[in-house]
Amino acid sequence: MQIVRSVAAMQRLAREWRRAGERVGLVPTMGYLHAGHLSLVQRARQLVGQRGKVVVSIYVNPTQFGPNEDFSHYPRDLRRDARLCREVGVDVIFAPADEQMYPRGDGTGFSTFVIEEALARGMEGKSRPTHFRGVSTVVAKLFNIVQPDLAVFGSKDYQQAAIIKRMVRDLNFPLKLVVAPILREADGLAMSSRNKYLVGDLRAQALVLRRSLQRVQAAVRQAARPVPASRLKVELKRFVERAPAARIDYVEFFDPETLVPVPKVKRGVQVALAVFIGKTRLIDNARL
Amino acid sequence: MQIVRSVAAMQRLAREWRRAGERVGLVPTMGYLHAGHLSLVQRARQLVGQRGKVVVSIYVNPTQFGPNEDFSHYPRDLRRDARLCREVGVDVIFAPADEQMYPRGDGTGFSTFVIEEALARGMEGKSRPTHFRGVSTVVAKLFNIVQPDLAVFGSKDYQQAAIIKRMVRDLNFPLKLVVAPILREADGLAMSSRNKYLVGDLRAQALVLRRSLQRVQAAVRQAARPVPASRLKVELKRFVERAPAARIDYVEFFDPETLVPVPKVKRGVQVALAVFIGKTRLIDNARL
Repeated sequence: MQIVRSVAAMQRLAREWRRAGERVGLVPTMGYLHAGHLSLVQRARQLVGQRGKVVVSIYVNPTQFGPNEDFSHYPRDLRRDARLCREVGVDVIFAPADEQMYPRGDGTGFSTFVIEEALARGMEGKSRPTHFRGVSTVVAKLFNIVQPDLAVFGSKDYQQAAIIKRMVRDLNFPLKLVVAPILREADGLAMSSRNKYLVGDLRAQALVLRRSLQRVQAAVRQAARPVPASRLKVELKRFVERAPAARIDYVEFFDPETLVPVPKVKRGVQVALAVFIGKTRLIDNARL
Repeated sequence: MQIVRSVAAMQRLAREWRRAGERVGLVPTMGYLHAGHLSLVQRARQLVGQRGKVVVSIYVNPTQFGPNEDFSHYPRDLRRDARLCREVGVDVIFAPADEQMYPRGDGTGFSTFVIEEALARGMEGKSRPTHFRGVSTVVAKLFNIVQPDLAVFGSKDYQQAAIIKRMVRDLNFPLKLVVAPILREADGLAMSSRNKYLVGDLRAQALVLRRSLQRVQAAVRQAARPVPASRLKVELKRFVERAPAARIDYVEFFDPETLVPVPKVKRGVQVALAVFIGKTRLIDNARL
């Protein structure tokens, strides 16, 4: 397995693979890998085959963090990540430094952004106003650097996956986007690098995200007719905030394709929520 | 020579070329080709070689026209364009319909844009507020559809070339951007598809763009010290508007790399201007 640090070296490699007709799969991550990431790697491997190339990018992208968010403490451990990647048969880790991704110093700063303007408005986009423009921009860069035939994203951030899918369609990126299901701990907590922040009793309280989704799911499935979203939001918020360290950031019920909020909730509607557990902000979602 | 109408067919062709290791050069145009375009084609041919592939895209991109601009009357003549392209040895014309580039109808409209936020602010960006986001977005799409090794742009729109160059750098498009010099008519008028609008006496009046640039050039070269931009602007405007149908839209003196306006003008500074000749808006530029 190779660890590539520079954009130019990664593009050279991509060009060689292109010429050799290799199939290339990319799994973009911010590192501090967990089993969820590794399931994406396995999916990429299945899709490109044993002779194909699987690239994991590891980059904590500064432009997708807001000024008061956890960019500086976001967990990083490249040695551990490299070991895990080697174990699951990754071919290349692309782990660029910030100066590689956002070069400065020549007096002409970075100034081009990819901006999705419809799906990115609500939910995460509302809570974290510059988040998605950071995400779509860095993903466009990674696509141009690695030039994969396919890219595999998780779906814990449902909105993010939808935005990247839209970007691929709108800008005609020549690749297939694969969105894989959320991987969960045995007790149901969605896997996340940020779960590391959940010390002591907070870890148990974090279960409230998944449980609240399951409750809504049951309620909607049992209801004789569509249920007003406003009522479900109130109930869900009340349930979540019974956990003493939990505070709802948002909960939304929406069309799974257009992400437009729905006033009446029935089967097939998507629900997503963000909850602070102490200082740690976690997200989860489900199809009802 | 092949005329390709669909994005999918163009991407299939690009994929075949990629596999075969062909070098591909792209010349993006809005059609109604003139000798300036053909000089870009020849440049592309030189660079990819006789065995390489030269693609000319012909697409009058609606998203780069403002509501009161000339989108609907912009000159179009694909048969003539195809003949010219065949004569100069183009391999493929990519001429998509609007439904190919901006599909609708599935209830999820186009919503992803590439936006350059520094260089695009002044000049054309100020006069035509949504112009450059239309340009950078469609060019990103063309790059992803044709996947060229190099793309050749003219420099009549100096700011556009600078923005595309910045976009290629910032988003890591795996291609080389080539910016070719302005081609001019025998009397000095910069070649443009819009010159077709210059009927009767307007054609002669349009010479005022080039002549005003030459006057400034001479003045700056003769001056013992840097000349205030404000003074040059007043003089240039006065000179241009001696032509009865001419009205200055803007004139700017700026750093050729950062496009930042300079207060004092000396050799090496770039000047660009836009002038209405009757209803026709023309642009030109020069290095001082």
